[in-house]
Amino acid sequence: MFSIVGFASAAIAQPLPSWNDGAAKSAIVALVESVTDDGSADFVPRAERIAVFDNDGTLWSEQPMYFQAFFIFDRIKQLAPQHPEWKNKEPFASALRGDVKAALAGGEHALLEMAMATHAGMTTEEFETIVTDWIATAKHPKTGRLYTEMVFQPMLELLAYLRANGFKTYIVSGGGIEFMRPWTEKVYGIPPEQVIGSSIKTKFEMRDGKPVLVRLPEINFIDDKAGKPVGIHQHIGRRPIAAFGNSDGDLQMLQWTTAGKRGRFALLVRHTDAEREWAYDRESSIGRLDRALDEAQSKGWTVVDMKRDWNRIFAFEKPVR
Amino acid sequence: MFSIVGFASAAIAQPLPSWNDGAAKSAIVALVESVTDDGSADFVPRAERIAVFDNDGTLWSEQPMYFQAFFIFDRIKQLAPQHPEWKNKEPFASALRGDVKAALAGGEHALLEMAMATHAGMTTEEFETIVTDWIATAKHPKTGRLYTEMVFQPMLELLAYLRANGFKTYIVSGGGIEFMRPWTEKVYGIPPEQVIGSSIKTKFEMRDGKPVLVRLPEINFIDDKAGKPVGIHQHIGRRPIAAFGNSDGDLQMLQWTTAGKRGRFALLVRHTDAEREWAYDRESSIGRLDRALDEAQSKGWTVVDMKRDWNRIFAFEKPVR
Repeated sequence: MFSIVGFASAAIAQPLPSWNDGAAKSAIVALVESVTDDGSADFVPRAERIAVFDNDGTLWSEQPMYFQAFFIFDRIKQLAPQHPEWKNKEPFASALRGDVKAALAGGEHALLEMAMATHAGMTTEEFETIVTDWIATAKHPKTGRLYTEMVFQPMLELLAYLRANGFKTYIVSGGGIEFMRPWTEKVYGIPPEQVIGSSIKTKFEMRDGKPVLVRLPEINFIDDKAGKPVGIHQHIGRRPIAAFGNSDGDLQMLQWTTAGKRGRFALLVRHTDAEREWAYDRESSIGRLDRALDEAQSKGWTVVDMKRDWNRIFAFEKPVR
Repeated sequence: MFSIVGFASAAIAQPLPSWNDGAAKSAIVALVESVTDDGSADFVPRAERIAVFDNDGTLWSEQPMYFQAFFIFDRIKQLAPQHPEWKNKEPFASALRGDVKAALAGGEHALLEMAMATHAGMTTEEFETIVTDWIATAKHPKTGRLYTEMVFQPMLELLAYLRANGFKTYIVSGGGIEFMRPWTEKVYGIPPEQVIGSSIKTKFEMRDGKPVLVRLPEINFIDDKAGKPVGIHQHIGRRPIAAFGNSDGDLQMLQWTTAGKRGRFALLVRHTDAEREWAYDRESSIGRLDRALDEAQSKGWTVVDMKRDWNRIFAFEKPVR
């Protein structure tokens, strides 16, 4: 009994150990205290404490390219024996030579073509197994770590702190919904039904008397930019009161959240630490933070300066205090 | 303390008071006892206790036509002053004359045209208000009751019983998702994020500096028949272990559920009581129960005979014992 009480007190005294004292941490604590104080005009009933989080660049890293793109390139290599024609067909030929830049030279169209070739054509259960196997073994080219080790320790603490205070935490990502669901519960504590993302169409059919959902090479929904509020409304059906992002792709989600009756909190993670992670914002092709940064400044949204505000970025590092 | 224990015992002894003793009630109790018994091989962890319910004909009545169709006809009358051209344009002209049969003579195309004219063109918030106002006042033509009074008391007890045993209850309906969400929490105890249904597309835009989602006259998703497993997978991302329906439109949902690793329960409500509700099955144009009934018989799914199994259908009636 004693140890449980001791643990609880410690958790209350120190809810966000990887966050340095400062404006960002104070703003988060103030949010939680206001919505949970049932004597306050800012009190929010538990059922409405919805918090939405972007994934790439907000909960884990996204450099030198989105981690799902590494998955695509690995899948192309794996599938190559069944596709001899890829040797002479772009963007696959470049991808197989390991020339990522050339493979991506065709822009969004090339990426989409590679995504469809690697994400469709199997059942949903087969795809889940493929992702589960990949995420358990694939390593990031720079850090040599598993991708799931490259989640931000301060954001894990933030997710846990919000949930301990009655928030329901959702992911709202431009990434593939079925690429995230197999591992988000284990890594973030976010169950599959609280993951919103981009998707391809699926089709119900009977195979040998057994019902399956087959993944089709056709876009169903792109959960990015103006798509994020649409995805939130489709899945949740009520407006979040807090939104967390890191790029212009999250701007509409933050606008939508803060314009709600109870909407009161928007936060942007700014990548400012070239040593421990990456530093990029207005000029980056991945995770560009430009318009949203201007709007954060004019509207008083919370902006996290990773270098200054976080004493630890990844769990595998020692804290810098 | 004494009274709490007494209450708990009573609740355990009598979880489904409107259900007569019989095969259906026994099957439900056996389901709950097996998944919650952590010493049993059939035990299911709480997070995986997902139960999905059709709405029309399963949780509330659906005769003489889907209740949402009454909403459409009421909306057409309401909007008529803004559409003078409807007086000479089918199916609207018939709808305005109150000739439902003629209005529906054009089949699905006519219904879709009326649905789009009445469900699109406003923001999501405006539509929510429209539905909330209608459902609070509109009366069923036969019973004179509010539509939300025409929910099945035994199913409310079933929902509560499952939730008391750690199940998460979802609606999976061919009806409009935004037509249901404004009232399902109050009526069924099912929050908006656990409602899956058919939808039209929405578009994010800024109006006077305020972000809104505008409802477009374009189908996004039809959550019926083979669409139900697709909708379940999109929203929940894991397979239910129990599914409840009443018609052929629910067949694929029941197949998908029972084919899962932990899937173990499928139930069909059969409308057999022409006196207290309606009696219809294989020949009905609404809520046809034909193929699914055959499959229930061959697979041993539970079939509820409303007349025999339910001592009360609606809360406003006295139980028949």
